[in-house]
Amino acid sequence: MKRIGLLTSGGDCQALNAAMRGVVKSLVNSGEQIELYGFLDGYRGLIYGEYRMLDISDFSGILTRGGTILGTSRVPFKTIREPDEDGRDKVESMKHSYYKLRLDCLVILGGNGTHKTANLLREEGLNIVTLPKTIDNDLWGTDMTFGFQSAVDIATQTIDYIHTTADSHGRVFIVEIMGHKVGFLPLNAGMAGGADIILIPEIPYDIDKIVDAIELRKKRGAKFTIIVVAEGAISKQDAKLSKKEYKEKVAKAKYPSVSYEIAEKIQKKTGKEVRVTVPGHIQRGGAPDSYDRVFASRLGSEAGKLILKGEYGFMVGYKNREIVKVPLDEVAGKLKSLDPNAAIIKEAKMLGISFGD
Amino acid sequence: MKRIGLLTSGGDCQALNAAMRGVVKSLVNSGEQIELYGFLDGYRGLIYGEYRMLDISDFSGILTRGGTILGTSRVPFKTIREPDEDGRDKVESMKHSYYKLRLDCLVILGGNGTHKTANLLREEGLNIVTLPKTIDNDLWGTDMTFGFQSAVDIATQTIDYIHTTADSHGRVFIVEIMGHKVGFLPLNAGMAGGADIILIPEIPYDIDKIVDAIELRKKRGAKFTIIVVAEGAISKQDAKLSKKEYKEKVAKAKYPSVSYEIAEKIQKKTGKEVRVTVPGHIQRGGAPDSYDRVFASRLGSEAGKLILKGEYGFMVGYKNREIVKVPLDEVAGKLKSLDPNAAIIKEAKMLGISFGD
Amino acid sequence: MKRIGLLTSGGDCQALNAAMRGVVKSLVNSGEQIELYGFLDGYRGLIYGEYRMLDISDFSGILTRGGTILGTSRVPFKTIREPDEDGRDKVESMKHSYYKLRLDCLVILGGNGTHKTANLLREEGLNIVTLPKTIDNDLWGTDMTFGFQSAVDIATQTIDYIHTTADSHGRVFIVEIMGHKVGFLPLNAGMAGGADIILIPEIPYDIDKIVDAIELRKKRGAKFTIIVVAEGAISKQDAKLSKKEYKEKVAKAKYPSVSYEIAEKIQKKTGKEVRVTVPGHIQRGGAPDSYDRVFASRLGSEAGKLILKGEYGFMVGYKNREIVKVPLDEVAGKLKSLDPNAAIIKEAKMLGISFGD
Amino acid sequence: MKRIGLLTSGGDCQALNAAMRGVVKSLVNSGEQIELYGFLDGYRGLIYGEYRMLDISDFSGILTRGGTILGTSRVPFKTIREPDEDGRDKVESMKHSYYKLRLDCLVILGGNGTHKTANLLREEGLNIVTLPKTIDNDLWGTDMTFGFQSAVDIATQTIDYIHTTADSHGRVFIVEIMGHKVGFLPLNAGMAGGADIILIPEIPYDIDKIVDAIELRKKRGAKFTIIVVAEGAISKQDAKLSKKEYKEKVAKAKYPSVSYEIAEKIQKKTGKEVRVTVPGHIQRGGAPDSYDRVFASRLGSEAGKLILKGEYGFMVGYKNREIVKVPLDEVAGKLKSLDPNAAIIKEAKMLGISFGD
Repeated sequence: MKRIGLLTSGGDCQALNAAMRGVVKSLVNSGEQIELYGFLDGYRGLIYGEYRMLDISDFSGILTRGGTILGTSRVPFKTIREPDEDGRDKVESMKHSYYKLRLDCLVILGGNGTHKTANLLREEGLNIVTLPKTIDNDLWGTDMTFGFQSAVDIATQTIDYIHTTADSHGRVFIVEIMGHKVGFLPLNAGMAGGADIILIPEIPYDIDKIVDAIELRKKRGAKFTIIVVAEGAISKQDAKLSKKEYKEKVAKAKYPSVSYEIAEKIQKKTGKEVRVTVPGHIQRGGAPDSYDRVFASRLGSEAGKLILKGEYGFMVGYKNREIVKVPLDEVAGKLKSLDPNAAIIKEAKMLGISFGD
Repeated sequence: MKRIGLLTSGGDCQALNAAMRGVVKSLVNSGEQIELYGFLDGYRGLIYGEYRMLDISDFSGILTRGGTILGTSRVPFKTIREPDEDGRDKVESMKHSYYKLRLDCLVILGGNGTHKTANLLREEGLNIVTLPKTIDNDLWGTDMTFGFQSAVDIATQTIDYIHTTADSHGRVFIVEIMGHKVGFLPLNAGMAGGADIILIPEIPYDIDKIVDAIELRKKRGAKFTIIVVAEGAISKQDAKLSKKEYKEKVAKAKYPSVSYEIAEKIQKKTGKEVRVTVPGHIQRGGAPDSYDRVFASRLGSEAGKLILKGEYGFMVGYKNREIVKVPLDEVAGKLKSLDPNAAIIKEAKMLGISFGD
Repeated sequence: MKRIGLLTSGGDCQALNAAMRGVVKSLVNSGEQIELYGFLDGYRGLIYGEYRMLDISDFSGILTRGGTILGTSRVPFKTIREPDEDGRDKVESMKHSYYKLRLDCLVILGGNGTHKTANLLREEGLNIVTLPKTIDNDLWGTDMTFGFQSAVDIATQTIDYIHTTADSHGRVFIVEIMGHKVGFLPLNAGMAGGADIILIPEIPYDIDKIVDAIELRKKRGAKFTIIVVAEGAISKQDAKLSKKEYKEKVAKAKYPSVSYEIAEKIQKKTGKEVRVTVPGHIQRGGAPDSYDRVFASRLGSEAGKLILKGEYGFMVGYKNREIVKVPLDEVAGKLKSLDPNAAIIKEAKMLGISFGD
Repeated sequence: MKRIGLLTSGGDCQALNAAMRGVVKSLVNSGEQIELYGFLDGYRGLIYGEYRMLDISDFSGILTRGGTILGTSRVPFKTIREPDEDGRDKVESMKHSYYKLRLDCLVILGGNGTHKTANLLREEGLNIVTLPKTIDNDLWGTDMTFGFQSAVDIATQTIDYIHTTADSHGRVFIVEIMGHKVGFLPLNAGMAGGADIILIPEIPYDIDKIVDAIELRKKRGAKFTIIVVAEGAISKQDAKLSKKEYKEKVAKAKYPSVSYEIAEKIQKKTGKEVRVTVPGHIQRGGAPDSYDRVFASRLGSEAGKLILKGEYGFMVGYKNREIVKVPLDEVAGKLKSLDPNAAIIKEAKMLGISFGD
């Protein structure tokens, strides 16, 4: 008999439900007796002891459903050691919930921030297994995260929609794709959507190079240009600023996001009207695609296996086409970034895509 | 033998190509000899004599393709009688193109603005047949326009995506849907997407009523609220301003669109974070849905029939489930608006949707 | 206080849940106290007294979900007056369930067969309100049924998929679309999918005319031909047979469906390989499209209104763009069919579509 | 200056155009002068010298388009050394076309059969580069082929559609998914679609085990069961037959495919009606998904790189997340099959999926 807690933390994404279903199905099918405690709204539920008992029927039919049946929230790692508004010790509260329910294990689904806290709980002595969730695919220790491919699908669809209107009107269009620190999502969506220019955090851009690329397209007879801009795209000048200086600059910015600034600069230099589209939160919404459903189910079933064997302190990841376990202390606090010299970047350049560098 | 010009004008939308294919297929299949002249980028092409010869193969495979193979642009009716930058008389230039190519007829696809100019050309003696294109469904003289249902699909899909993330995070989400003057699109997308509150230009809102609706949902156990806001949503106070006063107010507005203002007000009154999503131009992009493909093809084929019979000066419209011809001078300059007391509004209210009134 | 039964009967389709949600939401929002009894698996549940109590939360989140949360089954009207296997009087059993639960009204969602039984229950004195569900759009008394437009979407998507492979291989492809007695679905899907030939029950075909149409396309340079065949497509010869003779012929047929026979005949006459695709049940599956969600919600809310007013014995239908109530005895037993001389057929022919006649 | 031939051979699939666009874009962007010859309908075009000159504009806008702009056909490797109907030596004819156009290289996109012929042409001295296309993902030498993930998407969507109707009617449903020899596609689509039972060629089934799995589900309260059957699913008894014996058995089979036989057997043993859906060719149709667009573009760009370097005799493949070149003679004639003990099979079993073994 195993008593297992489950929680989803951080920004939601596709296939969270599929992954939890995988964990639970594999435990149930093993014949092991289990009791399931679903903490509500991420670490919040663990801190405040808010949970609901779950059974297998709660996981029926959710393979295809977006979001998370447990709810989620962001509880920043930075302040996890600080007391909450009511003076409550958050870490002690989480441990209290765990021990009070006499849990054998806590399964945590989340991204970078989530993993830092998960590792802290491991250090505090809790049995933890985690699953790598993020549309950014920037988790260290795994080649792939679930949510990523589904987000690429939606971002690509957005670019597809813009393509017809850009073509009809002969316009320059910017599509801003999620990705504050890493460019996997904008890069893949841009390549899939046939973007002409892709600006990612890893490759600071030069506005003149962007204008050159637009003019070159015009010279070759193209009526329109589509630019994918990562949320965290940065110019060469700004890349030289210190973190603090850059933050101050952003705080003072006239526009809600970097795309509008880039649009304004291009407009000034080319005299052409530039339109901006910001699909935003839709990129983390909707049903998971077939890839993520299979992938998250596989990861979930392996998490179930670890629990059955009593192997704790791991994230279940994916390396060289195999599902693997990765020690949590190796994962926590590290970011997987996109090498600006990666093969895929070179291939994209060979396809004629400009990175503004 | 007929010499026929074609042009698409105004904002692009889905099924423009399907409609043109319908016109051309019906002409070709009639056995009539035809010559086709496609003017580029809307009335611009007619003014500057820019066109390309088309044949039936140009219309093969475009039934499903979004945008317009002819390109489009906005040439405002307001200034149509004024000379262009080079001093050219725009109306005379258009007539010149028409007569120089010895056209029998000009087929024009467009929305409200387009129809004003189309009617002017008719008054000037040209043979005109038009087709009703707009995602807003606000053209007078027809129950339906093509583009509308496809735009409802995309807007609904956006709301669906937001639904999963709103639910997971327990947030208030605003989705801004196209519709500056009329609310058909936001209303239908809102109903299809299960929005809780829908704000449309026809029903000025009271911010307190919106807050009430959010609180009521909370009281009934709902974690989240989804608000669809039409681009042209307006508060009861602002609705009392003169056009001029309102324009000045908008010009001074802090935010790029009304949704952000509404979000800020709700945030202040409820203390809850409100997220805004603006899908924007994607609503007019992508392939037409099955409804619009059939509808636009039918309209197109009827336009072909009118041309074969030499009946000019009409828009092909849809009334009480029949394709009809509507005199252009009846259409031009009129807006079809949504009656705030229409059955569909009452039904929406019965479903529990608040309009903030 | 109202006690209301709900059941869905016949083949399932999209938007059944949306329609029920509409009924329930409008009742709940009226302030009326209600008790909801959901009979399981259509009339079966009513006969055997199998139901579950429902509350408003059961209808949350089902606007977008395909199928029916109540389950459905086919209980043929033909034998409704005959006792069941256990000798039970089915009609009396249904009345018993109704009276035992002291229902004020029974809301029935279904198609043609369902409406016959619904009318019988009305004749027996029960308070009945019905909603028109069928992907075939063949219900008398309403211009539109829910399920239809969603099925057109899926059927069209199937044809779209086949289009690319037909084009690549230069093949003749048959896509068999649902429609045993009426051709609305195959006609609309065929037009939306750009089919070259459409065979529907209302227009008996001549195989030589089909071959002519294929050859004509070839002559004009087309590599491939796409034929949409309704399940109930019938040749001119067979159309002359009596119902009994035709049934016997079908019973002896070599192939599981008419498409394979037509394929074989074309193959013999043209020497070309003909491929057949039968999407089958997928046409009634999946989430309702935006059109059906709005439409079914509107119908549902109007049904709620009738119940509140105590107006029973009606189907809620749609006529000339208005939601209307239609007396059940007018609806029952009648089929709405597609006039072979309807405007849409003529328009399709003008577009170059052959009906094999 | 390079003169390059292109051809697509075998069954079409998604992303063929994307891959060719990748090749051509990378060549054009390299600055190398190129001349492009597109052979029509696969090896047929090469044999009969049918081609058309292509330029960069032919590859504009085709990233998202399904099928192949060059057409395709099946020219069986088995008889490639035999003369054609007119006594023509097919291999010599292909060489003749190649040398007559003074090609520097021939780029061939195809699957298993295609690669055998490609290798033969290499052995005959032609410069060949190939790209791995197949929805079956059964090509030796590459972890992934393009078309596969898009086909999984469509097959999964089909299962999703069936899910709602299976659930509503409480039925056993069989969905037959492509895969004559290998089970990657049915396995992944089955897992993504939440199938309860998956039958693949690699794991012969026992009909009683299938019935057991259905009964177990029923006992646990499930109303319905979804079975994914690969085209090449085989029973344990039949797996013992010699190839010849099995072929004879299949030739005599009553039904057009194995699914109907399995359905009949289940029906006999359970007394339950079993429905069969065969999506067929739609699985290779439609636009490529975002994954395949990126993947095929990357492979294409690497093929371009090989051509620029004059490295011939390779297939461009994908190994351990890197684009690699694989000698053609290693690829030709080998099948990549799915190990019945692969981790993914074990994981699927942990999720409760039965393979009928």
